[in-house]
Amino acid sequence: MALESLRYRRGSLEVLNQRLLPGQLRYERVGGVERAWGAIRDMEVRGAPAIALLGCLSLAVELAGGEGPSEDLGALEEFVGQKLGFLLTARPTAANLGHEAERLRAFVRQRVETPGVTPQQLRESIIEYIEGLLEKDRRDNRNIGAHGASHILGRVPGGGPVTLLTHCNTGTLATAGYGTALAVVVGADRVTANGDVANKIGTFQLAVAARHMGIPFYVAAPSSTCDPTLASGRLIPIEERPGTELTHLGGVLLADPEVDVWNPAFDVTPHELITGGIITEWGVFAPSELCRALADRGKR
Amino acid sequence: MALESLRYRRGSLEVLNQRLLPGQLRYERVGGVERAWGAIRDMEVRGAPAIALLGCLSLAVELAGGEGPSEDLGALEEFVGQKLGFLLTARPTAANLGHEAERLRAFVRQRVETPGVTPQQLRESIIEYIEGLLEKDRRDNRNIGAHGASHILGRVPGGGPVTLLTHCNTGTLATAGYGTALAVVVGADRVTANGDVANKIGTFQLAVAARHMGIPFYVAAPSSTCDPTLASGRLIPIEERPGTELTHLGGVLLADPEVDVWNPAFDVTPHELITGGIITEWGVFAPSELCRALADRGKR
Repeated sequence: MALESLRYRRGSLEVLNQRLLPGQLRYERVGGVERAWGAIRDMEVRGAPAIALLGCLSLAVELAGGEGPSEDLGALEEFVGQKLGFLLTARPTAANLGHEAERLRAFVRQRVETPGVTPQQLRESIIEYIEGLLEKDRRDNRNIGAHGASHILGRVPGGGPVTLLTHCNTGTLATAGYGTALAVVVGADRVTANGDVANKIGTFQLAVAARHMGIPFYVAAPSSTCDPTLASGRLIPIEERPGTELTHLGGVLLADPEVDVWNPAFDVTPHELITGGIITEWGVFAPSELCRALADRGKR
Repeated sequence: MALESLRYRRGSLEVLNQRLLPGQLRYERVGGVERAWGAIRDMEVRGAPAIALLGCLSLAVELAGGEGPSEDLGALEEFVGQKLGFLLTARPTAANLGHEAERLRAFVRQRVETPGVTPQQLRESIIEYIEGLLEKDRRDNRNIGAHGASHILGRVPGGGPVTLLTHCNTGTLATAGYGTALAVVVGADRVTANGDVANKIGTFQLAVAARHMGIPFYVAAPSSTCDPTLASGRLIPIEERPGTELTHLGGVLLADPEVDVWNPAFDVTPHELITGGIITEWGVFAPSELCRALADRGKR
């Protein structure tokens, strides 16, 4: 996929409006946090890592444009905190934005407490921190692709070729291989402490089918998707989308007007069905080991 | 569903063009076998029983309109046989049309051999025979619904209510119940001697999911769907549809132009996954017993 979901340079951010695909390929200007919130809620941008990036970058754009207090460190810290809190209300299931917001808040706190830092320096360092997230996302995606490909190919007699079935937006990894053996690879919006995974609705059914057929099932996700604060997938809040996404197409009613719709956007795949493993930028982990392994890595 | 897929009165046949739904509700005139062949191939009409009816009724329309030889019994028999053979080439997977054609040929043969039958009487009796199929279809559907509902409700503590999940066109039975318990009910395009079932692609995956969740899985189909000449589902020819059904929407290319598409219209669910049973107009049968039970009934 040569399409970029986001285009950024300092002070300027555009989002590819994925709701207009395939009819129109249109990048739309994101002038700040409010527009980003709308793009996330209305699913113009999809995929937990892209959602986190769009949110943070929209804040960087506001800061580069001179928005927010410029005289007082504490007031600037509060401004950033409020913007992040607002962004988190757009879609409830994706964990990455929550993680990034938490880390960004901790970074700001640390800078505020550093003696001699001016409000202008704080502002500049927040922008640079967020720009670093964009770089890290690209690096993580390359690493996830490399780890996943070497892990899967290493388990195929003769080293390949392999066929991968993907579901929803799994990014670079979807192009890691092709051919005759088979694995199932999906993304993740949130991974809980026990290795359960929330992802696009339909993932659970694919995992069940893979187990029935004896085919390994992998989840590919950056480590920021892991949420060790939730013990299991039962605790993940699942976003419910409007029923009109199913009853209407292009504004035309397809269903009986009496039909009642429950339209959850995600389902939860229990860890025991993730038989291949969870592929992260740090390597491939057994689902139940992932959060602990990442915590250990964080301590080192 | 209050929509009728076909509208028939002697000499006149219309088909609801299902390809135009939901944008347009249009019945189109079917003047004869050639137009019916196109409607079947282009999926203006769907569902194995409806396909069989449309094909046979289009022949009745030709006969009522005076098409075909009128002087000679043997020539009229040959005319009917050729029309039926042509209809069978439209879509390969559905068994019902093949069965109906075979039975109709046998009926014509028997009439031809009956002393004193005139070509005009033969013609009239074929039309009446085909009109009887339409009546039988309506009766069978009511019976399938009644058998399925009483079987399923009889297995629910307290007698219901139940929730049914349906897939593709399962007709009247889709409305048999509603509520809190769950069964999975699908139709069938062909059932083989061992009880394997070919149905709309995705059925197999639903059956696997139902087994994983411990939910009974039922197939609802008229007995004419049963093909005892095939030992197992591996022998069922599976129609492959054009790849553009997946790569294009409304004439707009959605996919990378390099993408290669395999688009089978049906999959085969092995009999061991049909844990509820096969619901026919004669009652509910274990999959492996169905074809034998029907054969025994045929002998009586």
